[in-house]
Amino acid sequence: MKSVKQFLLNSGEFFGDIGQQKDIVLSSRIRLARNLANHKFPNWANDAERDNIAEVAKSKLNGLKQLNGGVFFKISSLKDYEKLALCEHYMISKDLSLSGSWVACSVDQALSVMINEEDHLRIQVLRGGMGLKALWKIIGTIDDDLDGGDFAFDEKIGYLTACPTNIGTGMRASVMMHLPGLVINKQIQYTIDALNKVGVTVRGTLGEGTEAFGNIFQVSNQHTLGLSEQDIIVKIEHVAKTVMEHEEVARDQIFKSSKAFILDKICRAHGILRSCYRVGGAESFELLSLMRLASERGILPISYRNGIDRYMLEIQKGHLMVFSDDAAISEVRDVMRAKILRKFFSDIDISID
Amino acid sequence: MKSVKQFLLNSGEFFGDIGQQKDIVLSSRIRLARNLANHKFPNWANDAERDNIAEVAKSKLNGLKQLNGGVFFKISSLKDYEKLALCEHYMISKDLSLSGSWVACSVDQALSVMINEEDHLRIQVLRGGMGLKALWKIIGTIDDDLDGGDFAFDEKIGYLTACPTNIGTGMRASVMMHLPGLVINKQIQYTIDALNKVGVTVRGTLGEGTEAFGNIFQVSNQHTLGLSEQDIIVKIEHVAKTVMEHEEVARDQIFKSSKAFILDKICRAHGILRSCYRVGGAESFELLSLMRLASERGILPISYRNGIDRYMLEIQKGHLMVFSDDAAISEVRDVMRAKILRKFFSDIDISID
Repeated sequence: MKSVKQFLLNSGEFFGDIGQQKDIVLSSRIRLARNLANHKFPNWANDAERDNIAEVAKSKLNGLKQLNGGVFFKISSLKDYEKLALCEHYMISKDLSLSGSWVACSVDQALSVMINEEDHLRIQVLRGGMGLKALWKIIGTIDDDLDGGDFAFDEKIGYLTACPTNIGTGMRASVMMHLPGLVINKQIQYTIDALNKVGVTVRGTLGEGTEAFGNIFQVSNQHTLGLSEQDIIVKIEHVAKTVMEHEEVARDQIFKSSKAFILDKICRAHGILRSCYRVGGAESFELLSLMRLASERGILPISYRNGIDRYMLEIQKGHLMVFSDDAAISEVRDVMRAKILRKFFSDIDISID
Repeated sequence: MKSVKQFLLNSGEFFGDIGQQKDIVLSSRIRLARNLANHKFPNWANDAERDNIAEVAKSKLNGLKQLNGGVFFKISSLKDYEKLALCEHYMISKDLSLSGSWVACSVDQALSVMINEEDHLRIQVLRGGMGLKALWKIIGTIDDDLDGGDFAFDEKIGYLTACPTNIGTGMRASVMMHLPGLVINKQIQYTIDALNKVGVTVRGTLGEGTEAFGNIFQVSNQHTLGLSEQDIIVKIEHVAKTVMEHEEVARDQIFKSSKAFILDKICRAHGILRSCYRVGGAESFELLSLMRLASERGILPISYRNGIDRYMLEIQKGHLMVFSDDAAISEVRDVMRAKILRKFFSDIDISID
């Protein structure tokens, strides 16, 4: 079986040039919560029952053609930093890393299925850019292929899930948005509040309860009950489109009325990335966020955007620890991170004159 | 007559490689306060009397061979920013720029004589590095050449001056020291307090009541009464030597026990200098101070030190305004300053790997 390291070294689907509006939407994601009928939800099940659930789930997944050539990781066999890296890579949730059983990931990192997270199965599909409709087609097929008529389902209320907010479709549709304009313009909190009021959740990069590093926000539906899959996708696509428009206006405004301010911010970030001897994770995100913005505005070649997105994942603690034995020490990681970023940015010039 | 701009474009004596210990001592300076007997001190004299004093002083200076080819600037004819630039260039004091009559400067900027500052004549000699003894020889000759037996002098107490602290020799000997080590190690206040107790003043770059930008401090004698010229020079040289030793220990300590911290600080400063779109005066000083330190530690080629010292003068408000008509606006100056520094540092690489 592949190691986490080998798995991470692959280029994920979300780095490709598929998907649209990649200037603001880094990636789209749909996940479905599914449970086996006649089995306790994972948090109510004892170890034997959970093992039993895992066996059933794995045999389902073994037959899934979309997972062909993919890998299964047993959570309890992974080192802490490997679990962390899989979290950072959006393959597993923190909950799974704490108490889950398995995760199955496709080789292109576009599909992952978690076993015994909050629900028996959490099926997730990912791709770069805006693409919820395309993802819905993909995950619909996977759902059909996995469904042996044994999913917990109620004709009246839909799929049954451990948490009531997921009941119905069991679907969460989300887009990861890069919103430096709204952050710099201090409109982000207003935007988040407004979205919350219409049933949309805005969270940090690593899901529930996490901070938004690098001005990246995950926008998703708050609940699923009473909504069809189509409703959810239309809603999130609509919301994302609106947020994008606001973000574009904010960016234009900043580059128009605070040109020296933003150019200086970008130039200094570029200078620091090319020069720093050590740099922490949170600061790196901020600097990379500015580089991403610069690439959108033609200040930096756009061809580097995928590299920037990739480094946003790879400079994180878990990734660094998977890639190097020395990275267990925070100070060493900071120096390592700086070296990686210096190398990448040393070839990239910006011109502001 | 030369313009202030033409005058400033010359390379001053203090940028040369004369003088020693340039790693810490940027420049040495001696000034003598002299007054004409039977004339009121400038602040007690009316306009007519001050004009009369200025005429006598100028005729003395016209005959001074050390000023051959030099320039006379009439303070009231200068624009505010020209006066500021001459202050920044250590040619005149703030007092002179506010209410003085004239300044005469040698073409190599190593000698300036202010007329009707606090005293009728303030004679100053400057050179790069540590060199008070050499300066004393030079200024002694100038003093002799100017003295037509008409200086206010008392056999018992020495030269008479407007301010009692200057009575006696009328001499102030000072060295401009670059002390980033003591600042970073937070020992600078302790050092200043200790020096104050032994009759030594520590001030900012632009003299009395100014802040120490770029970790540069002026160390000089507090008073002159009761001390011979020799006493003062020996004292300041001794004090400077002691401070230098402390500074060297501090630098070694920082590079030994906080290596990553200081390397990162230097690398980032370098990155910002190469990249920034705009930068204020105070921040530039801080960044240049780190570059100067880096050049001393072999991180940056030592050959750039004179350039760094020169830019510490030339990026200041007055200099920028003298060199460009656009520089009247603070925001424009910040962009201009960044452009100058980017250009200079773009060719200078540092290697830390």
